[in-house]
Amino acid sequence: MAIEDVVASIAPGDPAAREAARLRQERLTKPPGSLGRLEALSLQVAAIQRTECPTVGGKAVVVAAGDHGVVAQGVTAYPQEVTAQMVLNFLAGGAAVSVMARHAGVKLVIVDAGVATPLPEHPGLRVARAGPGTADITRGPAMTREQAEACVMAGVELAREAAAEGADLIGTGDMGIGNTTASSAITAALTGRSASQTTGRGTGRNDEELERKVAVVERALEVNGPDPADGLDVLARVGGFEIGVLAGVVLGGAASRRVVVLDGFISGAAALIAHRLCPTVADYLVASHLSAEAGHRVVLAHLGLRPLLDLGMRLGEGTGAVLAMGLVEAAASCLTEMATFGEAGVSGAGAD
Amino acid sequence: MAIEDVVASIAPGDPAAREAARLRQERLTKPPGSLGRLEALSLQVAAIQRTECPTVGGKAVVVAAGDHGVVAQGVTAYPQEVTAQMVLNFLAGGAAVSVMARHAGVKLVIVDAGVATPLPEHPGLRVARAGPGTADITRGPAMTREQAEACVMAGVELAREAAAEGADLIGTGDMGIGNTTASSAITAALTGRSASQTTGRGTGRNDEELERKVAVVERALEVNGPDPADGLDVLARVGGFEIGVLAGVVLGGAASRRVVVLDGFISGAAALIAHRLCPTVADYLVASHLSAEAGHRVVLAHLGLRPLLDLGMRLGEGTGAVLAMGLVEAAASCLTEMATFGEAGVSGAGAD
Repeated sequence: MAIEDVVASIAPGDPAAREAARLRQERLTKPPGSLGRLEALSLQVAAIQRTECPTVGGKAVVVAAGDHGVVAQGVTAYPQEVTAQMVLNFLAGGAAVSVMARHAGVKLVIVDAGVATPLPEHPGLRVARAGPGTADITRGPAMTREQAEACVMAGVELAREAAAEGADLIGTGDMGIGNTTASSAITAALTGRSASQTTGRGTGRNDEELERKVAVVERALEVNGPDPADGLDVLARVGGFEIGVLAGVVLGGAASRRVVVLDGFISGAAALIAHRLCPTVADYLVASHLSAEAGHRVVLAHLGLRPLLDLGMRLGEGTGAVLAMGLVEAAASCLTEMATFGEAGVSGAGAD
Repeated sequence: MAIEDVVASIAPGDPAAREAARLRQERLTKPPGSLGRLEALSLQVAAIQRTECPTVGGKAVVVAAGDHGVVAQGVTAYPQEVTAQMVLNFLAGGAAVSVMARHAGVKLVIVDAGVATPLPEHPGLRVARAGPGTADITRGPAMTREQAEACVMAGVELAREAAAEGADLIGTGDMGIGNTTASSAITAALTGRSASQTTGRGTGRNDEELERKVAVVERALEVNGPDPADGLDVLARVGGFEIGVLAGVVLGGAASRRVVVLDGFISGAAALIAHRLCPTVADYLVASHLSAEAGHRVVLAHLGLRPLLDLGMRLGEGTGAVLAMGLVEAAASCLTEMATFGEAGVSGAGAD
């Protein structure tokens, strides 16, 4: 199966289910609108699941890891081997996303999408390597178009598996030293904004590093000239392997009619690629949080998404996605499980 | 035991545990500060639990219900019997807070603090009735000082029980037709702001109703002249039975060294009373969300609290508290369970 077949299989959310859910919301035992944004969220889940009574049982987050040749340009505070070290930390349960997922009942799917440092075999590690890290995007394309397609299709497959195994919510998470630089380049290419508008500090620490990083993103865009009309071209020229996998998770999640809960900036850049390949994915996307990373606002504005949380987080890994899944579950569950005024024998608002 | 003994038993959070937790945060496998507000939250929990490795296992929300004589002034859209009907809905598991608590593993403690309509006995209903609803605060005090003390002490006892039964987080929730009016009067009395600044629409629907409600709050303050230096006097003159119980839950939670997770506006008014009785409770408070009810901003500013969520909710019942408990659990658990750089063999940020 090719990407275009996946794209062709993605249908919009069901307006009839949404309308039925809206009518049901009005009959639930609470003042109209008093659950705030959870009410609109519940209608979105209803439209995605094609029922006025959506359910959220299983929850999974795909955490994709990959390395970036652009680290040679000195854009990060951490050495490249940290990508592999953090994958081992995910597998051992010691990373932030590991802890949060354990407490929230979220399954993590850890994926080596192309880490430079060799990783040992591990029963918890999915291998979908497109190469030993991307090439330096200031000198040429990150990867070939074939590699880009392979990443995306690997992500589609992972999302389908998660759906088949019972995940109603599928989240995205990333690990990759250097990947805020790639994400800034992707965001600039696909939204038409300048590198200075899409580039933040990442894990860097001062203004000088930020200026250098903006210059690196500008050079990557100049050298590669990604085609903004072609999401796969943008991925191949200035993207990353883990970003490609996450773009595939978005497509595969939408094709499987699952709610896709996006993490922060890197996941957002992946969603921009998926959205360029198939704008209908927007119906399936929930923005978990607003990252402190500057470019994330640009991503969310382009996708028309409003984040559920704003806690100043900028860690990635899927931490925001895991945190927000409880809110999505609450929204859907209230719609489905709350008593109506009639069922509970509760009087409605008076006429005066 | 009297309220002054409870107040005397409340100690500030432990600065040594907070500092030890801060040092531990710095060693965890993530860029410094990348968990945003969850990091400060984790230090607060550490200070409350007197350990650099806090834990969040049990979670409970006390949902107190009471009626308000001021409904005779036409300040609400719903008839008074809805208070009792909703208590039955809580017990049957059909209310929003019931659904959310079930999904989030939060125990609900439903309390009849003084509902006007008789309620049947129920194994899940705690009875701490101070009377069959308060008196109309536009004509005189809501309750006697003895009733106010009894409500508060009932709340203290409920919080202590919840703590003894293993709750690390104790939340507050309310039900009471007319209680936004009482909360607006309490907030005006204790913060010195005008009734128009502390009064919102509640479940009402138009500008005329809002104007009438502001006038009702003004009259309640004029008729009663609550003493802003005396939290118990404010409760007795313009408060509510369920609000008194929740003020007691705040005091009892702090005395038991538990994190107290406040719901929205009514819980906030209760916290203002507790805070006036004992300013040290501030160390124990977490604001779950920003309610859409106008006076809530005034409450949070006075208490120096910043809400974790801002979802446009205005339901009460403890719904915001339940939703935010997952965030508090995540914050504390990351501090305690994440690997340090040394433990995980992850390289730190480079020197350049």
